[in-house]
Amino acid sequence: MKKMDYQNVRGTQDFLPEQEVMRREIRRTLEDTFILYGCKPLETPIIHYSKLMASKYAGGAEILQEMYTLSDRGERDLALRYDLTIPFSKVVAMNPEIPMPFKRYEIGKVFRDGPIKAGRFREFTQCDVDIVGVKSQAAEAELMLIAVDAFSKLDVDIFIQYNNRKLLYGLLQIFEVPEEYMNRVILVLDKMEKIDRATLLKELTELTLSDASLTAIEGFLDAEPSLYYFDRYISSNSFVREGLAELRELKEYLEALQIADNCIFHPFLARGLEIYTGTIYEIFLRNGSIKSSIGSGGRYDNAIGGLIGSDQNFATVGISFGLDVIYTAFELAGKISSDAIVDIYIIPIGTVKQALVLARALRNEGNRVEVELSGKKVRKAMERANKGNVSKVIVLGEDEVVNNQYQLRNMNTGEVEKRAFSF
Amino acid sequence: MKKMDYQNVRGTQDFLPEQEVMRREIRRTLEDTFILYGCKPLETPIIHYSKLMASKYAGGAEILQEMYTLSDRGERDLALRYDLTIPFSKVVAMNPEIPMPFKRYEIGKVFRDGPIKAGRFREFTQCDVDIVGVKSQAAEAELMLIAVDAFSKLDVDIFIQYNNRKLLYGLLQIFEVPEEYMNRVILVLDKMEKIDRATLLKELTELTLSDASLTAIEGFLDAEPSLYYFDRYISSNSFVREGLAELRELKEYLEALQIADNCIFHPFLARGLEIYTGTIYEIFLRNGSIKSSIGSGGRYDNAIGGLIGSDQNFATVGISFGLDVIYTAFELAGKISSDAIVDIYIIPIGTVKQALVLARALRNEGNRVEVELSGKKVRKAMERANKGNVSKVIVLGEDEVVNNQYQLRNMNTGEVEKRAFSF
Repeated sequence: MKKMDYQNVRGTQDFLPEQEVMRREIRRTLEDTFILYGCKPLETPIIHYSKLMASKYAGGAEILQEMYTLSDRGERDLALRYDLTIPFSKVVAMNPEIPMPFKRYEIGKVFRDGPIKAGRFREFTQCDVDIVGVKSQAAEAELMLIAVDAFSKLDVDIFIQYNNRKLLYGLLQIFEVPEEYMNRVILVLDKMEKIDRATLLKELTELTLSDASLTAIEGFLDAEPSLYYFDRYISSNSFVREGLAELRELKEYLEALQIADNCIFHPFLARGLEIYTGTIYEIFLRNGSIKSSIGSGGRYDNAIGGLIGSDQNFATVGISFGLDVIYTAFELAGKISSDAIVDIYIIPIGTVKQALVLARALRNEGNRVEVELSGKKVRKAMERANKGNVSKVIVLGEDEVVNNQYQLRNMNTGEVEKRAFSF
Repeated sequence: MKKMDYQNVRGTQDFLPEQEVMRREIRRTLEDTFILYGCKPLETPIIHYSKLMASKYAGGAEILQEMYTLSDRGERDLALRYDLTIPFSKVVAMNPEIPMPFKRYEIGKVFRDGPIKAGRFREFTQCDVDIVGVKSQAAEAELMLIAVDAFSKLDVDIFIQYNNRKLLYGLLQIFEVPEEYMNRVILVLDKMEKIDRATLLKELTELTLSDASLTAIEGFLDAEPSLYYFDRYISSNSFVREGLAELRELKEYLEALQIADNCIFHPFLARGLEIYTGTIYEIFLRNGSIKSSIGSGGRYDNAIGGLIGSDQNFATVGISFGLDVIYTAFELAGKISSDAIVDIYIIPIGTVKQALVLARALRNEGNRVEVELSGKKVRKAMERANKGNVSKVIVLGEDEVVNNQYQLRNMNTGEVEKRAFSF
């Protein structure tokens, strides 16, 4: 077999133990936080009908280009999921008996056949929480609180930018941006912090907006990014009115929860996806080591109803954390897992059988125990113990077995503890 | 969208919360057991080069027919992994600096586009432990011990059948079965307990074996399934000699570990896959509610070397647990998770803001807390509390907030506890 054939495919990667221990810590911290918030676990398939994943209530044209497609022996048109939101919406649509509100989490792999950039992979793990059945902004506040709580447990300094789609949409209506350009203008404004003003204006001009619209948008770009800016438009546009009311309600909750300082109103934030209908938010690292968001979400009240072709409104809010980008942040910060992996390492000298028995007894006490089974010489084995993440070592020779006694050596302090054990 | 389009694809399924809570328990119990044995976590991609997955050191022809194939925008020939063994072998081949012995676990989804039977799915979760770098049968013993320990923690009664490929191979050499029929004869013998004697003999006859071979095999089928049967062949065949020595070594370890009663020698056990080179084993439920194995494994010393086209021997032993079949066993046994999902359910009456604040404080004490955010009336909310897995309820009205005091009602005992909290 040629070497190339046993390499990883472009855009995929292995996580070796030192990396995976850290990822396991991140994953469990997120999961345990979700559980504390009363979130219920859900597991959906990776393979779906491509028609479902391509639903217009789903990710939009950009993501569809990145969808992996395949077929099975029944010649069905299938696709790998590119997010956990569509599979979740499908579950709600398929199971009308689920009691509402329904708050679920799912942690799983998703797949996008997209361009590869630093830190961007073609298969990656998302950690999602979604709530269906709550119209109040309290749902948004709770999801933002989950983010603050989880990252505080992970000892990562973050802030959250938030906005409301209605606000932006209503404002552009007032600026007389034609309906058909609306989404594209919003996507350009979303890039506000990534591209310079000239490029941004050029992109807007290319959309053939009227001069009046352009001037109005420029004025907005120069305005103070505060909720007060929008007050002047309350009477003239119902979207602005609703958006503003929702954001004020949200702000009250954030203040009561004392996380308002972590949450910053950002009037240009739009998020790429078209499904969002109300509040949206993105999570960023305070130290800026990664520029893109490490999590995001928002309200998407029309997706589930749209999926089942019903007018029924399913109030739905979600948040998604990117395990891989969080892990990359940990790597950049030089964080190393404090987890030793092995508490006790037993090196048998002609005593493998007894070492296995002793190991079992120590494991039953809750210790993580490895027995050296390769027949390494003691010196080599001690070298391994020194290099590996091992806390304590037992060298088990015939004498120890005969005397029913062994020594437990602490590899950090050098201390030795004598213990009895009937072999 | 037509209803069909938001159904699950044949062979895939969702796990709703009550199911997933149980699956999470099984998964964590297995993972925590692996960790106690000093196993290191590894995460490999789901998408691989199809050439790698089709390597002759991999699953063999039967599995390759069930491989999902796809391609990416670079027009690479790709496949979804159908097990975790090949990706593990690839990692060892790609990373010669990994210290040996290397004991890793991985829990992840695998995919097989195979025929669908009860309890057999096209995407399912495997939980694997593999050890590379240990020639001693102590590795096999440790993996079998992991199985006994994990299932004992899960309160599932199991037994393990084991055998050695060398024993079977050597015996068939003595019976003058031609080399080219060897694997097929072994696969027929493996079905010994699933098909009747006549069918079995018919299948063997169809392989055009000599009468002498057939008679010898029949004699073997009628023999006592004990290691002693093979003693007579020790001098005449080196495979029988080696196989027998390995099994006797293994048995010593199993006896020392006091798990010999759970482990039964089964001379016809062969396992479908061709990669195995020595000891093999399968795990079965004692209550027989599921006939097929719920886990299995064995030694495959040639796979990694073969993969990198090297003569270097990589002593490798593995075990694989099927999360889905274990979960099915739990369902059949009517086991229900004792996990309440929610410890405290807060029903606010015009006090959402304060409820969120109280919830946060209670979560910081380690409670799983859900706040009713849908605006349900108290009666409806109490109904939900009674139906859902809720331990305690707080009804939070204006009075409670003004008096800085609330009542915690235990839903099982009816007891009420008064508590102070400054809202």
